Amino acid sequence: MAPAASVAVENLNPKVLKCEYAVRGEIVIHAQRLQQQLQTQPGSLPFDQILFCNIGNPQSLGQQPVTFFREVLALCDHPCLLEKEETKSLFSADAISRAKQILATIPGRATGAYSHSQGIKGLRDAIAAGITSRDGFPANADDIFITDGASPGVHMMMQLLIRNEKDGILCPIPQYPLYSASIALHGGALVPYYLDEKTGWGLEISDLKKQLEDARSKGIDVRALVVINPGNPTGQVLAEDNQYDIVKFCKNEGLVLLADEVYQENIYVDNKKFNSFKKIARSMGYGEDDLPLVSFQSVSKGYYGECGKRGGYMEITGFSAPVREQIYKVASVNLCSNITGQILASLVMNPPKVGDESYASYKAEKDAILQSLARRAKALEDAFNKLEGISCNKAEGAMYLFPQIHLPQKAIEAAKAAKKAPDAFYALRLLESTGIVVVPGSGFGQVPGTWHIRCTILPQEDKIPAVITRFKAFHEVFMAEYRD
Amino acid sequence: MAPAASVAVENLNPKVLKCEYAVRGEIVIHAQRLQQQLQTQPGSLPFDQILFCNIGNPQSLGQQPVTFFREVLALCDHPCLLEKEETKSLFSADAISRAKQILATIPGRATGAYSHSQGIKGLRDAIAAGITSRDGFPANADDIFITDGASPGVHMMMQLLIRNEKDGILCPIPQYPLYSASIALHGGALVPYYLDEKTGWGLEISDLKKQLEDARSKGIDVRALVVINPGNPTGQVLAEDNQYDIVKFCKNEGLVLLADEVYQENIYVDNKKFNSFKKIARSMGYGEDDLPLVSFQSVSKGYYGECGKRGGYMEITGFSAPVREQIYKVASVNLCSNITGQILASLVMNPPKVGDESYASYKAEKDAILQSLARRAKALEDAFNKLEGISCNKAEGAMYLFPQIHLPQKAIEAAKAAKKAPDAFYALRLLESTGIVVVPGSGFGQVPGTWHIRCTILPQEDKIPAVITRFKAFHEVFMAEYRD
Repeated sequence: MAPAASVAVENLNPKVLKCEYAVRGEIVIHAQRLQQQLQTQPGSLPFDQILFCNIGNPQSLGQQPVTFFREVLALCDHPCLLEKEETKSLFSADAISRAKQILATIPGRATGAYSHSQGIKGLRDAIAAGITSRDGFPANADDIFITDGASPGVHMMMQLLIRNEKDGILCPIPQYPLYSASIALHGGALVPYYLDEKTGWGLEISDLKKQLEDARSKGIDVRALVVINPGNPTGQVLAEDNQYDIVKFCKNEGLVLLADEVYQENIYVDNKKFNSFKKIARSMGYGEDDLPLVSFQSVSKGYYGECGKRGGYMEITGFSAPVREQIYKVASVNLCSNITGQILASLVMNPPKVGDESYASYKAEKDAILQSLARRAKALEDAFNKLEGISCNKAEGAMYLFPQIHLPQKAIEAAKAAKKAPDAFYALRLLESTGIVVVPGSGFGQVPGTWHIRCTILPQEDKIPAVITRFKAFHEVFMAEYRD
Repeated sequence: MAPAASVAVENLNPKVLKCEYAVRGEIVIHAQRLQQQLQTQPGSLPFDQILFCNIGNPQSLGQQPVTFFREVLALCDHPCLLEKEETKSLFSADAISRAKQILATIPGRATGAYSHSQGIKGLRDAIAAGITSRDGFPANADDIFITDGASPGVHMMMQLLIRNEKDGILCPIPQYPLYSASIALHGGALVPYYLDEKTGWGLEISDLKKQLEDARSKGIDVRALVVINPGNPTGQVLAEDNQYDIVKFCKNEGLVLLADEVYQENIYVDNKKFNSFKKIARSMGYGEDDLPLVSFQSVSKGYYGECGKRGGYMEITGFSAPVREQIYKVASVNLCSNITGQILASLVMNPPKVGDESYASYKAEKDAILQSLARRAKALEDAFNKLEGISCNKAEGAMYLFPQIHLPQKAIEAAKAAKKAPDAFYALRLLESTGIVVVPGSGFGQVPGTWHIRCTILPQEDKIPAVITRFKAFHEVFMAEYRD
C-alpha cells in the first residue's frame, strides 16, 4: 500500500470537503498572497496596502482596545504586580480592585489552571449579573458556558442536535457562514429561510413557516432555528414584535432557538434597540418549560472588538437536566476555554460603572468607537447607493454592509468564462484593482440571480474617504467595461 | 408536537451520547459537589479539602507560573506599559525586549485581532526555530498550526481522517481519553493496541501488527496510529529503537502517525530522553514523502503547566498540498486560537537563554519544578508499591502514576452490587474517605480483568506525606473490609 494513499484528499471526511467558509476563503487567501508580494516587491501592484474588509476584526484595522479591560487582563496575567507600589501609578484604581476581585474568585488565584468546564464560577456569576441587569430578568451562572469566542458554542449545539442528514437547522439567508460550515461539518441539512431585502432584510414569519413545512414534507426533522440579531451580514435589528412572533413560532413548532446575539452592543440607529430573545421570552411569560433557547455572546464584537482573545459564552435555558449533562460532557472534552477570554467575557458584561475611577475614560472610549462606527456605516452606505447599479440597505447594527450589485449581463458572462460566481468575479477584480478585500454574497447565500458583497464598516474613519474613492473608481471602470 | 420532544436526551446525536471523558467524569462531578458541601457545611465530611489528582493541572494545586512567561504576557496584553518609565523597575529587561519583539511581529501590534488561522506568522517562526534547535532538523512555520491547547488539534485530525465507523485509529490502551472521546464524537472505530505493563508499559510492534491485521480483517480501514510519548496515563518514555520501529511500521502500513508529545519536557529518569518522532524520522532519512506525521505540543504540561492559557500547536509534515488546504479550511472555521496562548506557545519553545537577564531565575524556577516532580513521582510510586495488592510502574515521564490495584473478589462483588466498575467503586470510596480524586483505569482502558487508577504526581511536595498517609489508611481499611 502506498503511504500517500492514506491521506489523499479524496479519502478525507466528505463532510470536511463539503464545508465552505467564505470569510477566510479563496479571495482572502489571494489577498494574503498579494500582501506578501507588496512586502517583497513594493510598487508591483496598483495599491500600496491590502485593506481587509472581509471580516469583523476591528483591531486589525487600528481600533484600540478599551484601556480598562486590558489593565485588568495584564494584572490577572501577572498577579505579582498587585503587590508592587509602582503598580498604583501605572494602573487605574478600579482595574486594580477588579483584578483582585477576579483573582479572589479563582481557586488558588491560578489563572494558569484549567477551570470548571463551564468556566470559572465567579466569572459566570458576574456574567449572569450582567445579563440580569441588561434584561431585567434573572440569569443563572449554571446556565452559562464560557467559550473560546462564540464559534465553539455554535459547534457544540450543532454537534448535539444533528444526528444525520435528515436533521435540519433553519438558517437565515444570507447568513454568517459559520452556520453553514458547522451544519456541513456535522452532516446536517441547512433549511434556508430568506430575509427580505426590500423591507430592509425583514424576517417574515410566513416565510419561516413555509420553509419549515416544505422541509418537513421532505422528511427533514427540523430541530432548531438560527436567528442572528443584529444581522450578519445584513445589519438589520429585529423589531420587538417580530421577536415575539419568532419566540411563539419556536414554541409552537418545538424548535430550539439559537440566538446569535454577538452584535448586541452594535446598534447605530435611534429607532431600534437590542432585546435579547431571553428577555422577550420571559416578558411573554415563557419560562424554562416553554422554550429551549441558547444565546451566544462574544468579546470579539461590540465596541470592545477583542477578536484575538477568543472569549464568549452561551446562555442555555429550557433544556432538561439530562440534556444539560450532555452539553457539559462535550464542553469537558476540551477541558475549558482560555482564562484570559473568560475574564474578558466577565468584563464586557460588567464594564466600569458611574463612580468608578475609569468610568469617564471607559465611557469616552466606548462612545467614540460606537459613534464612529455609526458614521462610517452611514458614509459607506451613502457612497454605495450613489454608484450605478448598487443598492444598499442601512446597517442598523452589526459591522457590515451587504450591498446588492446589479451586475451587467456581460460581467456575468465574463465571470462564467472565468469559472467564477459573478459576485466572486467582481470581488476578485475589486481586490486586484484596489487592495480592498470583501466577501462575495455567494459565501453567505442570497436569492438566486442576485449578487452582493459583504464589506465591513471597520476601516478607521480617516481612511473611509480613500476607501470610497478607490471603490468608486474601480466600480466605474468595471461598469464601463461590462455595460450591456 | 410537544416542544420538549425536540430536545429529549434520546434525540441527541448518538455519537455525543456514546462519548465518554473520564478525567472530568462522574467521580469528578461528585468531587465538585463534595467541595461545595465543604464550603456550605464545614466539618460535615471526614476531610477538610478535596485534592484533585484527576487531571494534569499543576497550577490548580499550587504550582507557580514561570515569571518570565507571565511578564511577557502582561506586557503584550497592555502594550501601553512599554512606554512607561516605571515598567523598567517592574519587569525584567529581557521580558520587555521580548514583548517588543513579539508585538513587532503582530500586524498593527494588535493582540486583540484575529490572526492568520494557523497563528501569527512571527510566532510560528519562533516555534519552528525552537523545534529546529530541539531536533537538529529544520522546521517550517508553514507546518505549524497554533491551537487552543493540544485537544483542538487532535479533534481536527480526527475530523479529517474519520469518514464513518469503518475508519479506524490505532490507540494505545491505556490511553488518554481525549482520543477515545474524539474518535467517538467523529464516529470512527478505536483500534486498541495494548501497552505491556510487565515491561514498564512497553509498546510492542508485534502487538501493533496483530491489532492492525485483526482490524483490517474486520473491514476496518486503519488510518492512523496514536502514540503518546511520554505516556499518559502510563508515564513510560519510549526508547529510541522503539521509535525507529514505530516510524517504519507507519511508513510500511501507510498510516498517519499522530504523536502526542505534550510531555516532552517531563522526563524524570537519567537513562531516558525525549526524542520527537520528527527527529527520529528525519534521522532515518525519511522526508516529506515518506510519512504523514503530526506532532502535538501544549503549554499546559512541561514545567510551565499553563493549562488555563489554552496554548499549543501541531506540526504537520508529510501531507500533500490539497490535504493541507483542507486542514487550513477547518482551522479557519474557528478563525484562530487565542493570542495569549499563541504567545505563550512561542515562549515555551524559546525560553530565556544563557546571558539573558531572566535566565538564572528562569532556570531556577524550571529546575525546581522538574526536580520536585521527579521526587514526588518517586515518593508516590514507592508508597503505592508498599501497599498490599498494589503494583506500580515507575513514572519515567509525564505527570501520572497508573498503579494496578489487585482487588479482592469480595470488593469486585460489592462493586457489582453497587453497579460500578470495580476500579470506579474503589476510586469513589477513596474520594469519600479521603477527599483524594483519582480516575478509574476503566476510563483509560486496561487489560480486561485488571484494575487501575490514575493519580497525578502534582500535589505540592509538602503535601505528599499527608496524601500518602491518607491513601494508606484508606487502602488498609478497604482491604480489611473486602479481603477474601
